[in-house]
Amino acid sequence: MTDSHCLTCAFTPDGRTWPASLEAAGLAVDGHEALVSAPVRDPSVTYAQMNDTGLVSLAYRLPPDGLSNDQRSHALDALETYLTDKRAHMLGYQVNQDMNHYRETLSRFMINHLNNIGDPFQSGCYKPNTKLVERAVLDYYASLWRARWPHDPSDRESYWGYMLSMGSTEGNMYGLWNARDYLSGRALINDPRLEEDSGLSVQVKQDGANRNAYRPVAFFSEDTHYSLTKAVRVLNIETFHAVGEAEYPDDCPLRDRNNNRLSRWPTEVPSKPGMSGSSADGPGDIDPDALATLVDFFASKGHPILVSLNFGSTFKGAHDDVRTVCERLLPIFHRYDMLERELHYGNHAERRRGFWIHVDGALGAGYAPFMRMAASNPDYGYTPEVPIPEFDFGLRVPLEGHGEIDMVSSIAMSGHKWPGTPWPCGIFMTKVKYQVRPPTSPEYIGSPDTTFAGSRNGFSPLLLWDYLSRHPYRAQVKSIERAQKLAQYLKEQLETLEDPPGSMWVARTPGALTVRFRRPVDQLISKWSLSPETVYITSGGRKIGRDYAHAFVMAGTTRQQIDELIEDLRATGYPEPLKRAFATQAPTPEPAPEVLDNAARLAAVPWSGRGFE
Amino acid sequence: MTDSHCLTCAFTPDGRTWPASLEAAGLAVDGHEALVSAPVRDPSVTYAQMNDTGLVSLAYRLPPDGLSNDQRSHALDALETYLTDKRAHMLGYQVNQDMNHYRETLSRFMINHLNNIGDPFQSGCYKPNTKLVERAVLDYYASLWRARWPHDPSDRESYWGYMLSMGSTEGNMYGLWNARDYLSGRALINDPRLEEDSGLSVQVKQDGANRNAYRPVAFFSEDTHYSLTKAVRVLNIETFHAVGEAEYPDDCPLRDRNNNRLSRWPTEVPSKPGMSGSSADGPGDIDPDALATLVDFFASKGHPILVSLNFGSTFKGAHDDVRTVCERLLPIFHRYDMLERELHYGNHAERRRGFWIHVDGALGAGYAPFMRMAASNPDYGYTPEVPIPEFDFGLRVPLEGHGEIDMVSSIAMSGHKWPGTPWPCGIFMTKVKYQVRPPTSPEYIGSPDTTFAGSRNGFSPLLLWDYLSRHPYRAQVKSIERAQKLAQYLKEQLETLEDPPGSMWVARTPGALTVRFRRPVDQLISKWSLSPETVYITSGGRKIGRDYAHAFVMAGTTRQQIDELIEDLRATGYPEPLKRAFATQAPTPEPAPEVLDNAARLAAVPWSGRGFE
Repeated sequence: MTDSHCLTCAFTPDGRTWPASLEAAGLAVDGHEALVSAPVRDPSVTYAQMNDTGLVSLAYRLPPDGLSNDQRSHALDALETYLTDKRAHMLGYQVNQDMNHYRETLSRFMINHLNNIGDPFQSGCYKPNTKLVERAVLDYYASLWRARWPHDPSDRESYWGYMLSMGSTEGNMYGLWNARDYLSGRALINDPRLEEDSGLSVQVKQDGANRNAYRPVAFFSEDTHYSLTKAVRVLNIETFHAVGEAEYPDDCPLRDRNNNRLSRWPTEVPSKPGMSGSSADGPGDIDPDALATLVDFFASKGHPILVSLNFGSTFKGAHDDVRTVCERLLPIFHRYDMLERELHYGNHAERRRGFWIHVDGALGAGYAPFMRMAASNPDYGYTPEVPIPEFDFGLRVPLEGHGEIDMVSSIAMSGHKWPGTPWPCGIFMTKVKYQVRPPTSPEYIGSPDTTFAGSRNGFSPLLLWDYLSRHPYRAQVKSIERAQKLAQYLKEQLETLEDPPGSMWVARTPGALTVRFRRPVDQLISKWSLSPETVYITSGGRKIGRDYAHAFVMAGTTRQQIDELIEDLRATGYPEPLKRAFATQAPTPEPAPEVLDNAARLAAVPWSGRGFE
Repeated sequence: MTDSHCLTCAFTPDGRTWPASLEAAGLAVDGHEALVSAPVRDPSVTYAQMNDTGLVSLAYRLPPDGLSNDQRSHALDALETYLTDKRAHMLGYQVNQDMNHYRETLSRFMINHLNNIGDPFQSGCYKPNTKLVERAVLDYYASLWRARWPHDPSDRESYWGYMLSMGSTEGNMYGLWNARDYLSGRALINDPRLEEDSGLSVQVKQDGANRNAYRPVAFFSEDTHYSLTKAVRVLNIETFHAVGEAEYPDDCPLRDRNNNRLSRWPTEVPSKPGMSGSSADGPGDIDPDALATLVDFFASKGHPILVSLNFGSTFKGAHDDVRTVCERLLPIFHRYDMLERELHYGNHAERRRGFWIHVDGALGAGYAPFMRMAASNPDYGYTPEVPIPEFDFGLRVPLEGHGEIDMVSSIAMSGHKWPGTPWPCGIFMTKVKYQVRPPTSPEYIGSPDTTFAGSRNGFSPLLLWDYLSRHPYRAQVKSIERAQKLAQYLKEQLETLEDPPGSMWVARTPGALTVRFRRPVDQLISKWSLSPETVYITSGGRKIGRDYAHAFVMAGTTRQQIDELIEDLRATGYPEPLKRAFATQAPTPEPAPEVLDNAARLAAVPWSGRGFE
């Protein structure tokens, strides 16, 4: 498998071979195998296909004897040129690209190692941290998401949260981990029994009458980001699909359009159907009826319920109607005694919920509160085209005899999406009353290890702080108004290209920042970083794939960029045969209803397509 | 619980209240509850105890109407002053603080959102990425850790890896996740059956004869970072302790110094004992005899074996002797047929290992190869005081009839420790042959979702690339030589303070970058960011806690800093009564052997103490 060329080919930017560079670095060429391994192939050949940047990969190699200052500068200059071009043509992802000010204000902090290790509300021993700033950012979002703040560990209703080192993938994983352990009966952070036990984790005693009492089942819609699939696998959480197929194979309670029971459990909760009756051309938010039917089934079997909802979904930009979902689910939770379950640990008992609602607000949690402000106050001068549902800690649902119940247990948001940051970051938030005891025993530790990472990026809080301090509420309202209107403008411009109407499948879910349309040629996918998605439908046993692309309009997007994209699509967006097919097509919106009879959206979408968390 | 003061107290830096700021932001004060939540207490009071920076927290608040440019500048200037002071006095953590060049070279990239979403070896659709640079960094470490490179997905022996968005915590979690799924029989990434199945995850059929065949058991030493405890809990991995206590409560095969069987299973694998017979004063690396005894026990019960080793442990800076461990374990794996187990999936069968060795090289994997280079070649002019064991993919152990077996399956390293970066980052590396199929089905995706996060920090590869391009092998050898010698100098200087000798418990494991000693007063802990650790021992049923601190000497540490620390310790390091106790103490090294008879180190250490990953 080894290619002998790799030891004689140019390895360094100045054309020297690997052995020559190794020798210059002080290692004898004939004896080096014991200390470092030589390439077995020419990396430029092996990596050629992965490199679509146009940059010469040789210039970026890291030879054993290092690079000269000139070599380093040339490589970085070329990279900067590449990135500048790509930034100017970024339309496919939900990322604000407008962040010139960070460099100016914050680059001076790059000489520090900023590490907010551990809990944001403990000062900790590593002093070059920015936890003071992180707490200000967390308080800001606690207020915006109507939680009780400031954080106070002795107040069960107060919020708790931290800034993520990844994006919302980490927040979703942390939220589901917390939910799993809460629902399966692990000890809570403030549990008084913590002082008694040996430092190992406390687990509830099984309930003899209900073998499912501590087996949570997870529900999320087919429009959910792939990171949720990953999270349930990492965490070994059972989904309704897996439990359904394994234990109730013939009992799926969902029905098709003809009111026949589905013969198999769907892998995810259906999203709302579109005109065709399939969710393929639907708006992208979860179908509350289908969710309620599924939740009722598993609640009746004694399972605790874990629901993850989307707020600004990654392909269609849709907002699950969190309030309606909560209103539908609360009576079910009540019926099966899940508002307060008694848990037994040794000789102790406590009461705790049997459900958890997590909101993946990666994109939407950043702007939705400002759309709700605008809708509530004409002084802002902007009325959103559709009402934006409540999704946050302030959402309360009345229940007779119980007053109002707060429903949302956790929220994740990305910092790099709506605000925009040079690298991924985000926020996770929950309440003190839901916090599970961290794995490391507090008996021996000065502060609980409450976050997912130990070391945490301490630079990211500076980024969000800088952004928020520059963008008062009024500016944020203006910003989302502008983006929403520009998204609608993009849709209208795309429709002018359709000949006949409907032939390019242009669609935008009202209130969403993204527009989807028939996938253009690869060259434009690449030029504009468009993200493609293939949607599968079945018809008469046949699978049909539809290739879409979508574009996101963010705060930094300009009308000029959109006009240029439209021009590109008009000029070279689709190959001639496809264009001719457009023109001879009947002008009915696709997909036609009769083709889609009994159709179900089969599955999932590329990671490259559902955007990122 | 609400404090009415919070609505009348100063909330903004210019002394306005929350309601005043809210009104300025366009929200009616009386009606705002529906849109944002007001503070229920004065955050300055609530957070007073968490703020040990001396900075005025009011200046960092994020009011609804934003901050002025002056307010922002003042807040950032004060923060910079604080951080500059803390950077100059950083001795407690394993972080290189020398990174002035990043700002100069790389801050220009802060205007981009750099996101290496997905696999580093797939170009992906988000074009403003730095995967080209990331691959160069990964190749560099693949060579240094003697893996087969460049990465080639069709070559089972080639490496695969990615850059972490967290530090090694993510790398350890990813490694253990991969190990869990590999050992429990999930499908591999190149499995030909992938094309056939429906996109759900493929799981091996249970082996009727051995109920434990797909129940991996995890082993790691008592000197292991707390992130491993977190990882096994997140991942629901069983540890030898948990399985032992639950299923074999009276059968722990370990023996105490008097050759009596231990009555309970220890929570972690014992580290090597020190002079006292306890590991409390030992060097900090794993006891290969104890590990082999434990692994043999669980291998004999049919369990696959997951071992995580430390290379540069977080408190003592010790290197587990990975080669010796591998030499001890290989015959055990061979005896129980774990070199190649046959796994059955439906009608398919395949062969796979029944063990996984992960190396947490958070700190040591960054410098150890350069110490090995120096030891091998006198031209470098530096001979390390002790041999540094092999720990990497090049480690091969001979086995009669099988040739040489490569033993290490995965390695994690932090970028912010030995190299030094402005925020946490790191490297995870394994081989193609161990890669488990990612959760999202490749049938529908353009590229597998192979990494832990979806979005990944695309700025961090630039940092490591810049560092490595500036530090050829010779410079790295010089750098570790200097740090090792300075660590020894610190130890010697600390010993000059001891009166009588041994009274300050000064100790340094040879080859380690850290020195431990009796914990000084809080003021110096804080001034120098020292990290404290309490070590517990039992004696005659009594628990005794010993308070230590440790200091790390990294590439950026100066002799002047050490001298200043010594001066501080001499002048004000310990309260008078303790100093008098020193002087009347017998000059025997503590803890005395008779006190420690039958002692076992009970457990764990603060997150603040074991440094960070």
